[in-house]
Amino acid sequence: MPHESKSCPVPHSLTRRGFLAGLSAGAAGAGLVACAPRATGDLEPGVVVPGDREGEDSRLGNEKVAFGGEHQAGIATPFQAHLNLVAFTFRGDADRGAARRIMRLWTEDARRLCEGRAPLGDLEPEMVDAPANLTVTCGFGGTFFDIIGRPEARPEWLGPLPAFSRDRLDDRWGEADVVLQLCSDDPVTLSHATRHMIRAGVDYVSVRWFQQGFLNSDGTRPDNATPRNLFGQKDGTVNPRTRDEFDDIVWIDEGPGWLRGGTALVVRRVAMNLDEWEMLDRNSREVVMGRTLDSGAPLTGEREFDTPDFAATDSYGLPVIDPASHIARSTNPADAPHQKIRRRAFNYDLPPEPGSGQTSNAGLIFICFQKNPLDQFVPIQRRLDEKDRLNQWITHIGSAVFACPPGVADEERGTGRNDAGRDAYWGATLFED
Amino acid sequence: MPHESKSCPVPHSLTRRGFLAGLSAGAAGAGLVACAPRATGDLEPGVVVPGDREGEDSRLGNEKVAFGGEHQAGIATPFQAHLNLVAFTFRGDADRGAARRIMRLWTEDARRLCEGRAPLGDLEPEMVDAPANLTVTCGFGGTFFDIIGRPEARPEWLGPLPAFSRDRLDDRWGEADVVLQLCSDDPVTLSHATRHMIRAGVDYVSVRWFQQGFLNSDGTRPDNATPRNLFGQKDGTVNPRTRDEFDDIVWIDEGPGWLRGGTALVVRRVAMNLDEWEMLDRNSREVVMGRTLDSGAPLTGEREFDTPDFAATDSYGLPVIDPASHIARSTNPADAPHQKIRRRAFNYDLPPEPGSGQTSNAGLIFICFQKNPLDQFVPIQRRLDEKDRLNQWITHIGSAVFACPPGVADEERGTGRNDAGRDAYWGATLFED
Repeated sequence: MPHESKSCPVPHSLTRRGFLAGLSAGAAGAGLVACAPRATGDLEPGVVVPGDREGEDSRLGNEKVAFGGEHQAGIATPFQAHLNLVAFTFRGDADRGAARRIMRLWTEDARRLCEGRAPLGDLEPEMVDAPANLTVTCGFGGTFFDIIGRPEARPEWLGPLPAFSRDRLDDRWGEADVVLQLCSDDPVTLSHATRHMIRAGVDYVSVRWFQQGFLNSDGTRPDNATPRNLFGQKDGTVNPRTRDEFDDIVWIDEGPGWLRGGTALVVRRVAMNLDEWEMLDRNSREVVMGRTLDSGAPLTGEREFDTPDFAATDSYGLPVIDPASHIARSTNPADAPHQKIRRRAFNYDLPPEPGSGQTSNAGLIFICFQKNPLDQFVPIQRRLDEKDRLNQWITHIGSAVFACPPGVADEERGTGRNDAGRDAYWGATLFED
Repeated sequence: MPHESKSCPVPHSLTRRGFLAGLSAGAAGAGLVACAPRATGDLEPGVVVPGDREGEDSRLGNEKVAFGGEHQAGIATPFQAHLNLVAFTFRGDADRGAARRIMRLWTEDARRLCEGRAPLGDLEPEMVDAPANLTVTCGFGGTFFDIIGRPEARPEWLGPLPAFSRDRLDDRWGEADVVLQLCSDDPVTLSHATRHMIRAGVDYVSVRWFQQGFLNSDGTRPDNATPRNLFGQKDGTVNPRTRDEFDDIVWIDEGPGWLRGGTALVVRRVAMNLDEWEMLDRNSREVVMGRTLDSGAPLTGEREFDTPDFAATDSYGLPVIDPASHIARSTNPADAPHQKIRRRAFNYDLPPEPGSGQTSNAGLIFICFQKNPLDQFVPIQRRLDEKDRLNQWITHIGSAVFACPPGVADEERGTGRNDAGRDAYWGATLFED
């Protein structure tokens, strides 16, 4: 995404719907776009501030997110409605050459899919012409670096996370060689794109696991409001939004050169016990979270984005926000300002497992991005693991960590496979001899 | 849905988005709504003709489909993007009283959910306030009539379909006591509504199976265009649209009194072998179907809704549409005009089954509605089972039949549980003594 529009953040796409809505507003006497520099600092390109009216209805299903750029798309990109997170295992005989071939192939195909063009060998242009904000994001697992014979290039944080006492991890959702995160606002587009990427890689990799998630659809959620998880909570309120915040929290700027501009992806599969959660009254649910259910405001505030006041007490001298609440435990201490992450979580809701005795099989595909999980996700999760009222209703059942390379350069459109384009693939600098 | 607006079909909801788009069109000098009687006859209420520009962008995610009316919603209703089809088994001790209680409870809860109001006992109004065209449709399996002690009220067509030679039916997707079809344009709304209905019934019924499907999202598919299946084909072109067609094909007007205004639901789970389908070139795919992939037009026509000319031959004297093509085999013979159905099929795409050797686990949740499956779905499927080029790539793996009672009366809003409302539940007349 271009980095020019510093002082005037615009939605990542200008759509027909937005255009019409803008015309209407114009007809009613309001300005087409209200745009002014923000006191909160420059926004990361692609970020739309919740509550930002000019973003309302700005995304039609057939809009596009730029594929090329300094960073991969699908990280700062606003939540799409649908997620397919697919982890792969390289075939036994795969080597550095195979890894390079699939990265070249996948990058080119992902670029085309995100631009609404059929990849080579895809005979169904009708299935790709509505990207609906499709993004394809690639990450490498720790084992990837052994396969390519570059173990020294592996970042020190890349590998299984330290164990947490409450983990009940299932290897079915464990570490893998490589991961693709595909997101779109259209489930058919997403299905076809995922299918294409799996098929394109079939000579080199096989599917290790496949996690499918969803959020409120674009049409339902006004002006990029925070979506809700299946406990009814707004999920994703605390997130970086300005360029400075993304630079501080998300984008890697030291360590191995190939990773500069990249980020660390942690995915945790978190089962949520709806049967027991629903036995709580609303007040108890809000105490557990430390936030109200309706607006998502902290119990000491009135609006979703108000800063919680953990020191506030009620008329009995008791803290308004329970120190064991999820918000109190997850918020970084004042002396650890770096303990923040970019959250990008999606709901899952599958048929109940036969014989489970449960009426649901639901939860969260918790995805977060950061510079270094050991400094960011891990200390946060350690606090939650130790004490968090929410723990009674949730269980972490899957965990994996991936290193996402930086974005690839924008290919010159219409030039086909020019020299610049041929080297513009995920992790290209890892393969330089 | 009201039956008054005979000569002026309108989209089933007048939305903010539609309103704004209308304003814009107005500002640009076009009329707000172009409306004239149709040569094709009166449209069934709720039906929007594909290509009908006035329907464009008419549905926001938070719009509503009327729950009450002569017929249940979710049958003539335009395709929503998401389906949860849930079949239930009554608990062993369930009897007529239990069945009546659950029907009363479910009907009231479904009505509230579709209206965006939280059902009693649902403490999460934030999860229901965006129905996004939610519909909840109920059907009774053959065994339902034994449970309620009214076997004589069972329609003669209700039960397992006659076997077809190519069937590979899995009992996992088989007959059940009762079914709920929930559809919405928002996946979170749909998840919560489904969850609520399952939980509300937990004292009486347990989930037998749960089929989840999807179509192109509302924002992607312009003016209610025909959605595509995962073979890339437009799926649902041939469908009743006028009130006369629905009266002729779908709504039951004879037989047991309790079923007048109702319909028969057949659901077939159809596995689609993407791996092998994708080996075909485009021309072969079009010959198999008898339609083009891009527009969906019959090979003898130019536009999707053109009538196929099965007698047309090419310069070699060969038929343009292969007599073994899907379109040729599925079209009713001239002497059997009643062999038509209302199709409402959704795609499924699940992670590949471990050890299957397949790269996909995808297909169609083929749902159709008709007066009598033995006279409509069965002869069509018999022709296809006998000969259909498409058979090489598809397998029917599930089958069930349900009788959908008519719609329930509109409750007077704001009156709560008035006497009319108390008797307005699915199948009420079955329980009259």
